[in-house]
Amino acid sequence: MSFIPPQRTLLGPGPSDISQRVLEAMARPTIGHLDPEFCKLMDEIKELLRYAFQTKNSLTFPISAPGSAGMEACFLNLVEPGDEVIVCKNGVFGARMLENVERAGGKGILVESDWGRAVSPIKLEEALEKNPKAKIVAFVHAETSTGALSDAETLAKISREFNCLTIVDAVTSLAGNPLLVDEWQLDAVYSGTQKCLSAPPGLSPVTFNQKAIEKIKSRKEKCRSWFLDLSLVMAYWSDDGKRSYHHTAPVNSLYALHESLLMLKEEGLENSWDRHQVNHLKLRAGLEELGLEYIVPEGERLPQLNSVSIPNPADDLKIRNQLLSQFSLEIGGGLGPLAGKIWRIGLMGQSSSEKNIELCLNALKKSL
Amino acid sequence: MSFIPPQRTLLGPGPSDISQRVLEAMARPTIGHLDPEFCKLMDEIKELLRYAFQTKNSLTFPISAPGSAGMEACFLNLVEPGDEVIVCKNGVFGARMLENVERAGGKGILVESDWGRAVSPIKLEEALEKNPKAKIVAFVHAETSTGALSDAETLAKISREFNCLTIVDAVTSLAGNPLLVDEWQLDAVYSGTQKCLSAPPGLSPVTFNQKAIEKIKSRKEKCRSWFLDLSLVMAYWSDDGKRSYHHTAPVNSLYALHESLLMLKEEGLENSWDRHQVNHLKLRAGLEELGLEYIVPEGERLPQLNSVSIPNPADDLKIRNQLLSQFSLEIGGGLGPLAGKIWRIGLMGQSSSEKNIELCLNALKKSL
Repeated sequence: MSFIPPQRTLLGPGPSDISQRVLEAMARPTIGHLDPEFCKLMDEIKELLRYAFQTKNSLTFPISAPGSAGMEACFLNLVEPGDEVIVCKNGVFGARMLENVERAGGKGILVESDWGRAVSPIKLEEALEKNPKAKIVAFVHAETSTGALSDAETLAKISREFNCLTIVDAVTSLAGNPLLVDEWQLDAVYSGTQKCLSAPPGLSPVTFNQKAIEKIKSRKEKCRSWFLDLSLVMAYWSDDGKRSYHHTAPVNSLYALHESLLMLKEEGLENSWDRHQVNHLKLRAGLEELGLEYIVPEGERLPQLNSVSIPNPADDLKIRNQLLSQFSLEIGGGLGPLAGKIWRIGLMGQSSSEKNIELCLNALKKSL
Repeated sequence: MSFIPPQRTLLGPGPSDISQRVLEAMARPTIGHLDPEFCKLMDEIKELLRYAFQTKNSLTFPISAPGSAGMEACFLNLVEPGDEVIVCKNGVFGARMLENVERAGGKGILVESDWGRAVSPIKLEEALEKNPKAKIVAFVHAETSTGALSDAETLAKISREFNCLTIVDAVTSLAGNPLLVDEWQLDAVYSGTQKCLSAPPGLSPVTFNQKAIEKIKSRKEKCRSWFLDLSLVMAYWSDDGKRSYHHTAPVNSLYALHESLLMLKEEGLENSWDRHQVNHLKLRAGLEELGLEYIVPEGERLPQLNSVSIPNPADDLKIRNQLLSQFSLEIGGGLGPLAGKIWRIGLMGQSSSEKNIELCLNALKKSL
């Protein structure tokens, strides 16, 4: 039997609600991935992604796989066997970065900050002083597992002072809060489509500046992944009008991404950031009224992902199931050490609306 | 501006035409990738894929990325650094397999057959005799770059006699011609969605038997890819009802794959094979009438991909552009040493129909 999914309101850590406009774009007829019309679409997507990332980087395109593959593309291409890499860890995704370093053959050096806090610039500086051979610093801009926002500009500035390249996880931040790739001089950045862009999951927008490209081009050993080898993929997504076949791009998913990027451009990037912030404050007021406490201190909170302690941890699954069955509303649970202890309420992309805030607060009120 | 793709008839090497039914499924509302309803869908997809692959293998699921990533999942998980791997090469995809072996840290031993011919079982046997340390044999069942079909059953039997595991590329064969994973005792098999399944590109169905799983579980070094590490991914796609979070699955693409697999089941796998064969013979009669000659000898031809020599190689691009602009018809050109020399005419999945054969023959007649 055909699968008819329920109509949910997605207020978890992603995917977020996808607009009808994006879903309709996705359902348009598939064309060949080397069709001249498709090549035009690829060019438009690159240009729109440059706007979203606020960059002029030529090498800006979507990896044909989810955010974890975008992360892997950064590490497997930039890290060479033996390279020392400083990994700032303040949640699940920092831990995943360390796994990536090791699988690339690098040596990871952990800088740990508390879960629920921003990455500490002081600790990063200390680690860089202690490890003069480090070549790369990796950190998460917006930690999806905790809802904490780190100061990417400062972390990148410190890294540059020690001649390190930066790999930045912007999966949840892109389009949700300020991210200025060029102004902050971030070297390699990856994101996802299913968070504040509100396109279906499955693609990972990435951008690399010239310094990152030089590191890739000077590799002594081939990238450990053929599928994600940027020296090959960049010829497929090149600006020069030629397209050398690499893999078959996920055509319809790219239709959807294109449409979601158009919507972002129509709204305006700054307006999108503002909307996420304004709605965050509205949700916060309501959550506080219900007695729910944020786990992240003010000033380090992500507007698009609100993590609060569960009043009675025994109720975690019961209440989330109730929200799903009675209100068709999804919110997220905790991951790792925060499993059963927190809820993660996302107001990402199209999900960030007044209507959803009301639904969420009413549903929580009735369920708590 | 929204991207409105032209309505093409896709008779290239993939993607093939996607039915309205599958496109509509893809556009249904996105739900969370840990939603209980989504977990049910995942179970159904696994069951339907087992039918398509003709296997009882528990570890049968779609990798969240295109066919090249499915290939990489097989090699990065099964090949350990130092392993000797025999790679049968009779086209582009055999060459890509060799790249995969090397990036996994293995030592590739090439067994070359002519482009446009099946893999030679005799050459494989000779290579196995000469290389007693070889642990794995890799070959392409249906070479998409040439249109040649190899005898997977015999190649796997020979490999077993030398205690080698097999990695089989079934990207173009799945649902298009007989592929019997269990009966032929193939150990690791990967495919794509955009060929004879007629789902949009972006996913790679794979299946692994117990021998392959044991090799993965006995690895001394971690898989070089975190994203494709089957020891992690298999927990995400497990049968035990628990789903441990790994990455965010491409929800809507999976809706589409599910619908295309339902359509395959409704038609019946054998009927699908027969349809591809019957239409191949009809197309062949017409192509021969036009004086176009197959590059693959009879008996080694893929019914779903017909490769013919271009009468006047200078006309390659001109004629393909004409087919596209006048008839909105896509056929494929040659790859590698066959670029400019052959056309590849696909009759895959939904594209394999009498209407399309007539369109193609008429268009070629007017253009040649």
